[in-house]
Amino acid sequence: MMTRFMQEALALARQAEAAGEIPVGCVIEKDGVIVGRGRNRRETDRTALGHAEIEAIAEACRTLGEWRLPGCRLFVTLEPCPMCAGAILNARISTVVFGAWDPRAGACGSVEDLMRGQFTHRPEVISGILERECEDILKDFFKKLR
Amino acid sequence: MMTRFMQEALALARQAEAAGEIPVGCVIEKDGVIVGRGRNRRETDRTALGHAEIEAIAEACRTLGEWRLPGCRLFVTLEPCPMCAGAILNARISTVVFGAWDPRAGACGSVEDLMRGQFTHRPEVISGILERECEDILKDFFKKLR
Repeated sequence: MMTRFMQEALALARQAEAAGEIPVGCVIEKDGVIVGRGRNRRETDRTALGHAEIEAIAEACRTLGEWRLPGCRLFVTLEPCPMCAGAILNARISTVVFGAWDPRAGACGSVEDLMRGQFTHRPEVISGILERECEDILKDFFKKLR
Repeated sequence: MMTRFMQEALALARQAEAAGEIPVGCVIEKDGVIVGRGRNRRETDRTALGHAEIEAIAEACRTLGEWRLPGCRLFVTLEPCPMCAGAILNARISTVVFGAWDPRAGACGSVEDLMRGQFTHRPEVISGILERECEDILKDFFKKLR
């Protein structure tokens, strides 16, 4: 079940890659249904806010008609950065599932851990789901850039 | 000069208040010109991303046609939360100027300090500009709610 949603996130990461973006994808699931999808669009849309999680959270808020997303699980191929981890806290998302760790900018355990900080909301965090696939798509992308 | 831009942010906070939102406003300035404006729209737009800084950063990226905003100063009436502090890092904003401290969710020194963390980018941070006015507008808002 977790693998299935991470596969959906990986499909979005591949779409990002095809568009020349760093391949990161994200889906948000509630009661077995995907309520939000996103992929990296930073270069195409020329916005610092263009991360996969931000797009997925915006869509989930539209789908559910609420800024609070309790009972939702967010699946993302790469460990969220501080902006996205903060958005997850603001949206009261219940569970965060990520694939690859981001030792450079990860805010769910790598550089910082905003999910276990002093903030009011503390989502459950599950790491390493389809880790190898999520890592490989990033490694391949950066290898081709060189 | 700093006071002038914070007054502009306060004017946006008052617009938020008039719309029934927690009164927070933000402007982004480059070379003396305002390139992005934002105010809290969380309840109206029903989105967890509806903070003043996010709207201002989105607008500044559109104005300048770039996801990187070096040389920009962000003025906000309330200390940024983790999401907004993370967005400031992602946008490579040079200077953050805020009015009131947020002891509950502030990520520029109160609860966390993402601006002095282990992340690559480290903006200059100036706090307490028009602090009293920025605090009072929030206090008055919450007093009326009770």
